[in-house]
Amino acid sequence: MAGQSLYALIAGVGPGTGRAIALRFAKAYPVVLLARNAESYQSTVEDVTKAGGRAIGIEVDVGDASSIGNAFNGIEKALPGSQLAAAVYNLNSGFLVKPFLDMKPEEFRSRVGGVAFALRAVSQSLAREFGPQGVHVAHAMIDGLIDTPVTRAWGNSSEPDSMIQPDAVAETYWHLHTQPRSAFTHEIDIRPFSKKF
Amino acid sequence: MAGQSLYALIAGVGPGTGRAIALRFAKAYPVVLLARNAESYQSTVEDVTKAGGRAIGIEVDVGDASSIGNAFNGIEKALPGSQLAAAVYNLNSGFLVKPFLDMKPEEFRSRVGGVAFALRAVSQSLAREFGPQGVHVAHAMIDGLIDTPVTRAWGNSSEPDSMIQPDAVAETYWHLHTQPRSAFTHEIDIRPFSKKF
Amino acid sequence: MAGQSLYALIAGVGPGTGRAIALRFAKAYPVVLLARNAESYQSTVEDVTKAGGRAIGIEVDVGDASSIGNAFNGIEKALPGSQLAAAVYNLNSGFLVKPFLDMKPEEFRSRVGGVAFALRAVSQSLAREFGPQGVHVAHAMIDGLIDTPVTRAWGNSSEPDSMIQPDAVAETYWHLHTQPRSAFTHEIDIRPFSKKF
Amino acid sequence: MAGQSLYALIAGVGPGTGRAIALRFAKAYPVVLLARNAESYQSTVEDVTKAGGRAIGIEVDVGDASSIGNAFNGIEKALPGSQLAAAVYNLNSGFLVKPFLDMKPEEFRSRVGGVAFALRAVSQSLAREFGPQGVHVAHAMIDGLIDTPVTRAWGNSSEPDSMIQPDAVAETYWHLHTQPRSAFTHEIDIRPFSKKF
Repeated sequence: MAGQSLYALIAGVGPGTGRAIALRFAKAYPVVLLARNAESYQSTVEDVTKAGGRAIGIEVDVGDASSIGNAFNGIEKALPGSQLAAAVYNLNSGFLVKPFLDMKPEEFRSRVGGVAFALRAVSQSLAREFGPQGVHVAHAMIDGLIDTPVTRAWGNSSEPDSMIQPDAVAETYWHLHTQPRSAFTHEIDIRPFSKKF
Repeated sequence: MAGQSLYALIAGVGPGTGRAIALRFAKAYPVVLLARNAESYQSTVEDVTKAGGRAIGIEVDVGDASSIGNAFNGIEKALPGSQLAAAVYNLNSGFLVKPFLDMKPEEFRSRVGGVAFALRAVSQSLAREFGPQGVHVAHAMIDGLIDTPVTRAWGNSSEPDSMIQPDAVAETYWHLHTQPRSAFTHEIDIRPFSKKF
Repeated sequence: MAGQSLYALIAGVGPGTGRAIALRFAKAYPVVLLARNAESYQSTVEDVTKAGGRAIGIEVDVGDASSIGNAFNGIEKALPGSQLAAAVYNLNSGFLVKPFLDMKPEEFRSRVGGVAFALRAVSQSLAREFGPQGVHVAHAMIDGLIDTPVTRAWGNSSEPDSMIQPDAVAETYWHLHTQPRSAFTHEIDIRPFSKKF
Repeated sequence: MAGQSLYALIAGVGPGTGRAIALRFAKAYPVVLLARNAESYQSTVEDVTKAGGRAIGIEVDVGDASSIGNAFNGIEKALPGSQLAAAVYNLNSGFLVKPFLDMKPEEFRSRVGGVAFALRAVSQSLAREFGPQGVHVAHAMIDGLIDTPVTRAWGNSSEPDSMIQPDAVAETYWHLHTQPRSAFTHEIDIRPFSKKF
């Protein structure tokens, strides 16, 4: 891929995990940040720029195919000829109070649990389809509260490190991205040391 | 429940598994058969009647809340004061060529696999919610082609019993229904002896 | 199998689940009861006889191949020409205070959890090997205290049915045994309605 | 842990994965290499030394408690006052022709599958016990042939990267070791891109 321009795409960028992933991948690639509203990614665009990286924010509604098409047109305009090096679909927005829903859906959580299980299934199916072409599809099961401005405000945690640090998630995602194709990981769990499971 | 009238509800009744489940549960209860179109359940209504049971068919679109409401109004009119003894949500319509999607979603099957995983999650969540109230929620993972008029027409099977017999599925569902609450089964797999898994 | 004599083998017979399984299968077959010491199965032999069935108790150390060989010689002597219809390996002796170890080994339970996981693996492997020959191998995951003389003495349960009734387990095992080979179940969980999982 | 001397322990060192893990961890710590026979680790001791690291080989029979005691006495003599930073129990010796046995034990593999499942259970139990103390217990499920001198000799692979490279496994183990305690991974799968699963 010598001479080939690459970029990383991060869908779902808020002030928590998405921001941390953007900062981590921006050490290696320009990053394209997707969110429904620009205000979600604006501060992260600034943080990446301050850190010496390049970030492009695009408003997109991932439920709308034409909106996604527009986003890719925008990427081609901003980064002409660049190829996608990595795409992170960040759904762990910290709102999941009793997580690990993709392994064990709790009572009263059938809707969120159904979505989480479905994503895990889609990930497995895509991995089986695209793995043989050398495309690495991985699914992370986040089992705990992520330490974000929102969750910190809930503030019921006395123990340091009992909430998942976004930088740690980003570092593990980066490791997955750097695995050579002879040794791909498909599923990984991430939880604080103190969490019962 | 002495003196209490009961009925069983079977959603998704075609000529295969739904019919077999209807016939099995109709030995004990009046059965209410739901399908989008009356032609799907009409012959089963007749078969149940011939076998000495009672069957009521109702057209319903389960994606439409008011349609479901109408269905329950129809049940109350046909079976006044009756209580629901069992509800079977039959999705195993035989179209799943590579099944067991709720355990292992195959390549090119991300959509169906996602739905199957989601149903499994919903079932687990509901079991955790309603189990403590004595409500039995069970999820069956059908790993193989069910022998229906449709699948038999595909006809690639030389070995008898290599396709799942609908009566066998119905018998296992009936067993689950009769488990006392001290020993509920939540998840069960069903596959032909000859199927690799 | 017309004219063919059959018997059922139950390994691990004490006064709880083993006894209930023996009584259930003895309605259909002579039952051979194995235990390390005759005193474990003696009362069950009597109970089966009283109920009109036939039971043969044999002392065996399943860790000793020659002891197992002797047991089968004893069976051939007692039931000449009979074929094995079903074998139940009953390990759920009620001593597992935090069960479901074959799905989720708890802290401080690595030894018992390791054995439970190993049994599940052996069961899967045997099912894959012998299933295609029509042999049904099933594994039950007992997730709760079984109501036995021993566990009842612990007596911390106020709620009826919050301990698994041995008869219910036996009935589910019997159902598994009667499944036709087009619809074998390989894994099944059994737990009280009130148990968190 | 400033001023605290640390070391890494690698049990099961041959010329494949164990060697790669030793070389990776030796960039950060002295490494203690355990094997039943010195000839298994001798060349790795030399490779680590050549690479500028420090390696100590100790013959040990892990099935023998006193042998393990002697090993730790030997470590204390060689590295007085040092603390264990990481221990890797390397069982993936490349002899597993149909791997992933800790997820799906194949037919004819009940013994190896039983051991693999048991190890997974022990790992879960230990993680639940020691996690809350900040000890990271992780279990890697190796789903594929590892490229070692032995497996390469079998030579049925035409595709590069279709066998797992030991260095890649070592790098993933190192990443697990560096995860902060707010974001521990407990289970991870590793397989070649080309492997069906």
